[in-house]
Parts: sequence; structure tokens; C-alpha cells
Amino acid sequence: MTRQVVFIEALDRPGVLSAVTNTIHRMGGNIVTSVGYRLNGHARLLLLIDSNIEEAKLAEAIEENLEDADVYVAEMGPTAAPLIAEFIKERPGIVTVLEHYLDPPDLLDAIMRLPNDVRMKIYPMLSPRTLALFLAEAEEDLVKEIVASVNPKELAKALEELDADEIADILPLLPEHMQRIILQSLPSEKRSEVAKLLKYPPESAGGIMTTSVPVLQKESTVQEALQKLLKEEYYVKDIVVVVDNSKRFYGIVPIDELLRAKPTEKLERLARKPPVTVDPYEDQEEVAKIMLRYEIRRLPVADDKGIFLGIIPIEDVTYVLAEEAAEDVAKLGGLAERPKERYLQASIRELVKLRLPWLLLIYIIESVTASILKQYEETIERIAVAAAFIPLIMDTGGNVGSQASSTIIRALALGEISERSKGDIVYTVLKELVTASTIGVVFALIGLGFAYVVSNSLELAISISLTLFIVIVFSDIVGASLPIIARRLGFDPATLSAPFVTTVVDVSVAVIYMTLVSKLVLGL
Amino acid sequence: MTRQVVFIEALDRPGVLSAVTNTIHRMGGNIVTSVGYRLNGHARLLLLIDSNIEEAKLAEAIEENLEDADVYVAEMGPTAAPLIAEFIKERPGIVTVLEHYLDPPDLLDAIMRLPNDVRMKIYPMLSPRTLALFLAEAEEDLVKEIVASVNPKELAKALEELDADEIADILPLLPEHMQRIILQSLPSEKRSEVAKLLKYPPESAGGIMTTSVPVLQKESTVQEALQKLLKEEYYVKDIVVVVDNSKRFYGIVPIDELLRAKPTEKLERLARKPPVTVDPYEDQEEVAKIMLRYEIRRLPVADDKGIFLGIIPIEDVTYVLAEEAAEDVAKLGGLAERPKERYLQASIRELVKLRLPWLLLIYIIESVTASILKQYEETIERIAVAAAFIPLIMDTGGNVGSQASSTIIRALALGEISERSKGDIVYTVLKELVTASTIGVVFALIGLGFAYVVSNSLELAISISLTLFIVIVFSDIVGASLPIIARRLGFDPATLSAPFVTTVVDVSVAVIYMTLVSKLVLGL
Repeated sequence: MTRQVVFIEALDRPGVLSAVTNTIHRMGGNIVTSVGYRLNGHARLLLLIDSNIEEAKLAEAIEENLEDADVYVAEMGPTAAPLIAEFIKERPGIVTVLEHYLDPPDLLDAIMRLPNDVRMKIYPMLSPRTLALFLAEAEEDLVKEIVASVNPKELAKALEELDADEIADILPLLPEHMQRIILQSLPSEKRSEVAKLLKYPPESAGGIMTTSVPVLQKESTVQEALQKLLKEEYYVKDIVVVVDNSKRFYGIVPIDELLRAKPTEKLERLARKPPVTVDPYEDQEEVAKIMLRYEIRRLPVADDKGIFLGIIPIEDVTYVLAEEAAEDVAKLGGLAERPKERYLQASIRELVKLRLPWLLLIYIIESVTASILKQYEETIERIAVAAAFIPLIMDTGGNVGSQASSTIIRALALGEISERSKGDIVYTVLKELVTASTIGVVFALIGLGFAYVVSNSLELAISISLTLFIVIVFSDIVGASLPIIARRLGFDPATLSAPFVTTVVDVSVAVIYMTLVSKLVLGL
Repeated sequence: MTRQVVFIEALDRPGVLSAVTNTIHRMGGNIVTSVGYRLNGHARLLLLIDSNIEEAKLAEAIEENLEDADVYVAEMGPTAAPLIAEFIKERPGIVTVLEHYLDPPDLLDAIMRLPNDVRMKIYPMLSPRTLALFLAEAEEDLVKEIVASVNPKELAKALEELDADEIADILPLLPEHMQRIILQSLPSEKRSEVAKLLKYPPESAGGIMTTSVPVLQKESTVQEALQKLLKEEYYVKDIVVVVDNSKRFYGIVPIDELLRAKPTEKLERLARKPPVTVDPYEDQEEVAKIMLRYEIRRLPVADDKGIFLGIIPIEDVTYVLAEEAAEDVAKLGGLAERPKERYLQASIRELVKLRLPWLLLIYIIESVTASILKQYEETIERIAVAAAFIPLIMDTGGNVGSQASSTIIRALALGEISERSKGDIVYTVLKELVTASTIGVVFALIGLGFAYVVSNSLELAISISLTLFIVIVFSDIVGASLPIIARRLGFDPATLSAPFVTTVVDVSVAVIYMTLVSKLVLGL
């Protein structure tokens, strides 16, 4: 069974709703809820149902039973958001009903599709719980909107619903006076937890850890641990953390072991040390890598004196991974950074600002290629057909370079090779040399044939063939080296590689190809 | 404290080890273990230590105390692998000691750096537990090597150490007769679990779910649930799954609620229904998306009749996300698929096979550009400087297109827009039209100035400026549309976009630019 959203607009007359529900029931669907209102002589209905019916079929069946009706059916999730948004738009107050039936992300996706003024009306109507879950997304633009429309008291009430680490992510997005108001309104224990977390950058281990986990002294007993675990609601509740008298991290006891142990047993005897702890300033991507490598579900964070600070649960790392993956896609696609706003909200100005600097940078570097080619104006004039092959050669070189980069980015990311091992670097360069030469030979042969057929000049064909070989080997080595160099300099290998490889390849093609054509074809 | 590896090769004489340990202790390091052997009159030592000492400093200090010694220090992890490998290479038997001190991934990384014949000698020496953890990586080439060197009985013993879902991932990689032998040697309960999992593709919900979770009838009591939970080792042990009399999924009870509830309470009353269940054939990427969206830690898998099949725990989804991220990087970089072997093991033949087809495809499509430019041979001959700008224009267009693609890939992935909503598609096209026009105007102006300075021809400068504007708008729309079209056709949007955008842009630049130059500059 899938949750589906049915949106209906029909001429308002008695029996509309029952006609719809009959059709749905007849087709084997269960109705979870239905809401509706009247608009300019029309009835608008929104139904949430659980069914296995194909969306198009259901819409058709309802339309057949209800002349003049427009019916849209979508699976719950992003696809349903436009329908829900359309329904809310005309009666914003209806969110107070819908928030009980929709999961926060589904409601949020719909609200974010409404015009700004409608959204601002809606936020103050939401329950603190829903508002809290919206805030927990910690998207900068969304937080700003909510802050601008909800009064500080309501906002504080909403934030109280969240865990300390979530509050710590949101607070820095608020204006300073709001931060103070909200911190003061928090219960004192939560306030000090939040203050602790605010010390670390949001993308560090300290920024993503949670302090909501039971912590006990190593002399405590199993019974005391269980009592503590059950008395409060913790975010991480399948382990207890054991510390020594100086609050230094000592070990972890999983809940099932607590349950199996004698109630009077000391925790000291049960505690297991995970293979690593991390420093609070460690980068979140590094944290994710360690947890995946060693299959650690709960990673303790401790400072340089060993003092226990918090736990990073693996479920939170999924968000880190999703974030980093989105960042890689953005970087490989030539965006300076991950967009801060949702696509539907992003202003044209923001989109241009995100894209223009990088485009300009590449344009400026690429203009070197144009200047070099300009030097060979005479050569091109005398053998114009040579120019026709330039894009083909540059493109092939660029593709080889980007393949080499992504092969090496991947090998570095998985720890298959290390950017700090001289042996690995030598090995990589040699391996790429052989791989690229093989690819280069294939293209040199194909290039020779194709160029000869098109140009009818053996000398030109040989120039193209030679250029292809040299450029393929060269781009491969450049493409493979850049991620290694980037890592050694402490950059993300995904950022630099693509644009640099393209540019280096283009310049080298211009020089090598034009020199060869001048020498071999024109005998200059 | 960080775990570090110290590798020392020194002239063999009494006191070598104590000189080393003294230095380490003096600098505040703790020695976890040390192993060593003699080789051609030299002593070779490998120490595992916990310290905060900088690697280079420690190596220097030891070298100072020990003339003629080569000392290498590395942080435990991928960087240490070359050192450990070098140490093992000369005495493979030493792995039987090291496997007790190294985490399996650290040992594996080292072993994978050894020559094939040494590796084949090592696998049979490893304990079933270590072998099992190696197999659990489920890398095809590694599994094949292990199968070729370890006898089936030992292999079966190793596999028994693993959970049913891990075994189900490995079995399909084995030759068929081995699969039968191993299935028969498994305890009957595990065998039937494995058989259940083998029904689903490895990248589906059914392929990644685990069946190792306590399942109880809804009439069972809290006490019965706790007893079941504690009697066996389950993979997922922080919940119990509740089913009805027909084995249909009914709900989930978290362990802390079980502990708080009355022992005689019926599970029926405590069970909570998560917002969704998934079908066993659902794609793993879709599963990850749902679990992230709705913050689900344990997602139940049920068939179309509602029969409970298994649980997908969020910690396993981290591997899915890491896998999918690696695939995206590979695809955006122009690799047909994720490499199947580690970089160090991959043969040149494999690397070329992975890269060549895509390069050839793009080469063939790109040769259209060459053919088009060839048609304008006369134009280029008469105004050769025009050719100098071709790469610059094509590159800019390609960059704009790939930015647009990655913006839309991201928006689709996060569900910010839906490829199935007509309104979203219209909105996206319009928004990209405005964004691209803005960017286009900037480049048209810059292009005009730059081209005029380089070429001294206003007509050429205007042609370039116009081409830039048209191509930027066109590539942006193509780049933005392709991911939407790919999704609607059921492809991964990351696969198609990059190469197609480049090619479409190049062809369109060739046509538009050459036409404009012919008309405006030459007046043809």
C-alpha cells in the first residue's frame, strides 16, 4: 500500500464527496482523511488515501463518475507537493488540520511552493512541534523566514522541542539578540549543552555530535545505568557511555549487554573501547569515513585530554554523507558551493551569483587558448581545415583528464591509495602512463583514419594523430595528479580538478597541434 | 591519542628494540604491540603505538637514536597500509600475529598491496573471523581470490560467522558448485534466511534488508518480547517487530519502551506504525531517500500482501549512500560504471575497458562538430582569427550547461522539484531562461570587448558576442532539461547529462558561430 494524495476540483453540488469515496473504496483504497472547502462555486477536496491503485487510473475513474471535475492523484512525497500547495494556497488556515496528517517534510515541501506572503501567514499558525521540525532542517533561508514571521516566544517554545545539537545548528542562523532571548528561555541544562556544542564549527565532529546520551561513572552498576536510561528521553538510547572520575572516556556498554548482565555488576567490567575516538574539531567527512571503515555505530568524541564530549550516532552520519554527495555533484558541475536555498525559492540574483564567478574564471583562463591560437593565424589561414579538428581533440583530451581525475578521486576517497605515500604516487603515475598510452594509441589510429578521410591530407592526419596521443597521455597524468596535489594541499579534490584539467588540456592542444601542423603540413 | 604505525629497518644488533621503545616512551607514546624479524643482517620492527606525537618528529627522534636506521611513521588507516604491506611481504606468516592487533580494514588494505602470489598464501592462514570480515566487503575480485586460495570447508566456516544478508551478498559472486556446498553447510535456519534474501536483487530493499531482528505476534507480551530479544544475538536489537496472525507487518516497539512498559502488556497496544513500509523490489537509492526524508531509523520491508520480510537499519543505508555517491562521481567523470576492482589491483586492461567505450562514443559524436566546421573551410580561410575563439565559446557553453545540469540534478534529488509535475517543468525552464539570459548578457559584453581587442574586427566581435549569448541560453536549457528527461525515462540523471550537453553545445556553436561569421564578417 502506498500513501497517495488526491486533489479534486468539481462543481459544488451535493454528493461530490460520496461519489469520490465510493470510487476509491470500490477500487480497494483506504481513505485516511479528507478535507475540503468551497471556492467560487466549486468544491475543492484533498484526500489522503492508502492504495495500490495506479495514479492515472484512479484519476480517470473519479473523473468518469464526476463530470466537469479536475482530478489529480500523486504518490505522497515530492510529487504530491504541488497538489497540496495548490490546495493550501486558497485557504492557508487549513494547514492547522493538515499538519496532523502529513509528515513534516511533505507539508514543508508544499508550503515552500507557496508565495512568500502566504508562507509568512502560515508559520505562526503551526504547532510548536511542526515548527520545530521545520527549523530542524536548518536551511538558512527557511529559518530566516520563520524568524521574521513568528514571535520570539513562540519560536523559543518550538526550539525547546528539539535536541541540543539541533538547536546549536539553528542558533547561529538567527540574529544575535534572538539568540540571547532563546538561550535564556531554555531550561538551564539544555542551555549549557547548547553552549557546549556552539563552541565547535557546524561541520566538525563537535558540531554534529549529540550530548543526549546516558553517561555514567565506571564504578556505577548495571542497575543504576538502566535506571538512568529509562528515566529520561535520550537521543541515543541503545548504549550507555562510561567515564572515569576525571570525566575521561572509558568505554561503551550496549543496552542488550546491560540487560543480560547481573544488576550489581560494575560498568567498568562491561565497558568496551571502540577502536577510535575522534577530536571535536575533526571534519565531518573524515568522521563519516572512519565510521564506515571500522563499522562504528556510535563514535565517541573526546578532547585532547580524553574528556568525553559526546557521541556521533551513525544515523546522523547519513545526513553528512548525503550533504557531501550533493556538494560533490555541485563541485563537479562547476558550482562554487552547495546552493543555500531551495531551487523554487532561490532568486535569479542568487543563482547568477553562485554560477558567474566560476564561469568568469574559466573564461579568463580559457582566453589564453584564444590568444595562443591567434598566434597561429597564418597557419590556420593556409590550412583552414586544420581548425575543424581543434574541438574534437580538445574534447577528447578533456574527457580523458576527467576520467583520470574521477578514478583517482575515488581511489583516494576509499583509501585504496594514499596521497602521502611516495610509492603510491609513483605507482599511480606509472599506471596512468600505461593506461593513457593504450587509450592514446587507439585514438591515434582512429584519428589518423578519420582525419585523412575528412581532410585528404596525410600530413594533417599525422599531426592530428600525434597530437591526440600526446594530449591524451598528458591530460591523463594532469587529471590523475591534480586530486593528489589538492589533497596534499588540504583542498577537496573534487573542487579543483574539472576546470583546471579542461584549461590545461586546451592550452596544450593549441600549442602542440599548431606547432605540429606548422611543421609537418606547412614545413614552417 | 591516535593509533600510529612505526616501521623500522636497522642494522641488527642488541638493543635496537629498547632504543626504540625508550624514545617512544620518552615522547609520551604508549606501545600497543611490537613485532619483528631479521632480514639479511637487518632487524625489521613494526610497532603499533598510541600517541599525540607528530609523525615526522617521531621518525626523526628514533633515527637520531639509531644510526643507519630507516624509520617511517604513519597514522593508522590508509596511509599506514604501505608500511604494513612492506613488513608483511617478507614474512607472510606474521599476519597470524597482526590480525589480532589490526582492524580488518587496516589489515585488508595492507594485504591488497602485496603481490598476487603472496596474497594467495596469506588467505588460508587467516582466522575464520578475519576471513569473514574480508568477505563481508563483498568486492568481487577479493572474493574470487579468497575462493581460489581457501578450501571450501574453511570458506564455509568463515561465512558462518556472517549475518544472513552478508552471506546473500557474497554467494552470487561464487561459482555455482561452491554456492551449493556452502548453503548445505550452513545451519538450517540461516540457510532458509539466506535463500529468502537471494530472491531479491542486491541493490533492492530486499537485498539490503536484514532478517536478523526479533519478530513477535501482536498477542505476545512485553516479557516474551524481552526474553526473545535477550536469548539470541540479533543484528537489529533496539526494536522488536510485531506481526499479526498472517505474518503481516503490524508495527514496531522500541526497546526502551519495552523496558518502561508493564511486563504483561500486549505488544499490540505498544506497537507503532512507521509512516511507510517498502516493497522488497524498491531500489536502494529510493530507500535511502525515504529514510532520510522521514528520519526513519528502522524501515520495515513488506510484500504486496503486507507480509513482513525484514528491516532496513539506517546504519546499512550509510553504505548505500557512500556507494551511490561514488557512482555519481564516476558517472559525472565519464566512467561507464563504478570500477569493480581496487585501483591497485585493477589491470590496465580493466581500466581501459572501463574508459574506452565512453571516450569513443563521445569522439564519434564530436566528429560531427569537425564535419560541420569542415563545411566552413572557406570562411575560416578568409578570416582565420575567427577559429581562435571556437574553443573559448564552446567551453563557456559547456560549463553553463553542466552548471544547469547539476543544479537540476540536485533539486530533483532533494525533491525540491518533481520531474512529473508540469508546473515544475514550466517553472524550471522559465527560471533557467532568465538566469541564463542574465549570464549571457554578461558574457556577451565581455566577449565583445575581448574579441575586439584581440581581432580588431567589430563584425567578428559582434558575431562572437551574439554566439555567446545564444549558446549560453541554449546550453542552459539543454543542461537543465536533460536530467528531467532522464528521470522521466527512468535513467539516472547523472549518467547522461555531461557528455550530451558538451556535444550538443559544440555542434550548436559550430553552426551558429560559423553562420554568423559568414554573414556578418564576410557578408556571404
